[in-house]
Amino acid sequence: MRLTLVEAEEILAGALQRGAELGKALSVAIVDAGGHLIAVKRSDGARALTPEIAIAKAYSSAIMERPTNMLYDWADSNPGFFAQLSNLAARPIVATEGGVTIKRDGEILGGLGVSGGTPAEDQKVCEEVLTGLGYELTFAAWGKNRG
Amino acid sequence: MRLTLVEAEEILAGALQRGAELGKALSVAIVDAGGHLIAVKRSDGARALTPEIAIAKAYSSAIMERPTNMLYDWADSNPGFFAQLSNLAARPIVATEGGVTIKRDGEILGGLGVSGGTPAEDQKVCEEVLTGLGYELTFAAWGKNRG
Amino acid sequence: MRLTLVEAEEILAGALQRGAELGKALSVAIVDAGGHLIAVKRSDGARALTPEIAIAKAYSSAIMERPTNMLYDWADSNPGFFAQLSNLAARPIVATEGGVTIKRDGEILGGLGVSGGTPAEDQKVCEEVLTGLGYELTFAAWGKNRG
Amino acid sequence: MRLTLVEAEEILAGALQRGAELGKALSVAIVDAGGHLIAVKRSDGARALTPEIAIAKAYSSAIMERPTNMLYDWADSNPGFFAQLSNLAARPIVATEGGVTIKRDGEILGGLGVSGGTPAEDQKVCEEVLTGLGYELTFAAWGKNRG
Repeated sequence: MRLTLVEAEEILAGALQRGAELGKALSVAIVDAGGHLIAVKRSDGARALTPEIAIAKAYSSAIMERPTNMLYDWADSNPGFFAQLSNLAARPIVATEGGVTIKRDGEILGGLGVSGGTPAEDQKVCEEVLTGLGYELTFAAWGKNRG
Repeated sequence: MRLTLVEAEEILAGALQRGAELGKALSVAIVDAGGHLIAVKRSDGARALTPEIAIAKAYSSAIMERPTNMLYDWADSNPGFFAQLSNLAARPIVATEGGVTIKRDGEILGGLGVSGGTPAEDQKVCEEVLTGLGYELTFAAWGKNRG
Repeated sequence: MRLTLVEAEEILAGALQRGAELGKALSVAIVDAGGHLIAVKRSDGARALTPEIAIAKAYSSAIMERPTNMLYDWADSNPGFFAQLSNLAARPIVATEGGVTIKRDGEILGGLGVSGGTPAEDQKVCEEVLTGLGYELTFAAWGKNRG
Repeated sequence: MRLTLVEAEEILAGALQRGAELGKALSVAIVDAGGHLIAVKRSDGARALTPEIAIAKAYSSAIMERPTNMLYDWADSNPGFFAQLSNLAARPIVATEGGVTIKRDGEILGGLGVSGGTPAEDQKVCEEVLTGLGYELTFAAWGKNRG
């Protein structure tokens, strides 16, 4: 099952709508399960690098099969190793708020990345949009990981 | 004057619409005058790398301030130097069809890149969409250039 | 539908078997539809770089959705642009013999790469193994492509 | 003396078998003494990046001639320098669990990398498999090393 462009646009529209409600100019990116781009949008006024940041968050959440804020423990416990992950991947792997795996019926469909708000806002936008559209937000715990 | 997201989406929609008419699954990208992403969409069925190719075309046409098919002479006359341009830039600089500078009232506003059709189709889509929306397609000639 | 490790091993075994019959020490690689590794094997006596070459062939055939020998026209008609594809992708994109897309029921499942024989042998091994196992080897033509 | 493909496959099979017993989808990689790939396998369900991580662990343990968990002291005592090692090598050098040097009769034959379990599981799989097959797991201590 693949995420369609129509589904991706629905997610993007929901995220930008929430950004507008928050008064924040967001960039939003969606990648497929293999980490490849489906859609990106940068709101007027969002900084030039925010689409790239959103893409990195989306990519990380898809390819690691976990929201990017579940990667903190790993990044914290072995930062040197965690940094090298980015050299093993097609794009940087980031531990941060605002990247959430897109999952439905237990299947990983891709990743959503949001940039431009506070970390808490970026995260909240991802979660609200995905929940609102019926995607699943439960992921098996991923504990401290020295490597 | 900056290209707004609404204007970018209008261009994207027009390009994807023409792709549908051609029966081709296109990826389309738009960057601003500084070469930074505004919007990208990959149609269902377009290959995984086509968004990246579209971005490179859009970037090249914005940052070089010429459609990417005006770069052939330079690329052909000094391919070694032309290849190094990509190492000087944030993204690859490509000489190809399907990347057209977005210009209005003589001002460079960004670049449009299309990938997924034949080269002629990619180019035709760019030109038709931009002309249809009132953007300008005339650019001063750029001759052979050894570097 | 995903290619399983069992299916990948079946393909690998068939390729190495044909290499043995040819008296050639081959390396063989298989990636999934997103271009990510499933399995690699280097025969005793195969050169150190052959697994990497096999991986690049497998990756290219999966991500471009065409056997690597269908990319010659593109590479020949616009070598500068073709070379930049490798900078847009997770791995080098190569136009050569010995990389064949793995397809079943019209769906792209991944790519097979073989290195270590002559180009003709590498190609023959790919085709014979995939055909023998019931995969499809017909791909829509991809003509000259200036970009 | 070189590690043969048959020997490498024996190690791989043992590691995947232990992964199955643990209920973990592992990726396993083996490189030769020069750090070049011999064999890689990704179990069904293992994340897309796990083969790359396993390769980095295998490479590090072969090329540094020590299990990757003997590199912590160095990495911790001079993280900036340790990070640069990866720029001096063909692949990232990682300090982590799950990469063990393959040694027999005092000779370094290569490296084994395992990814997909917890760090402790990855390490345990490496050690049990190599011990079970008669490889040696004793390495001279490697103390703090500022560079």
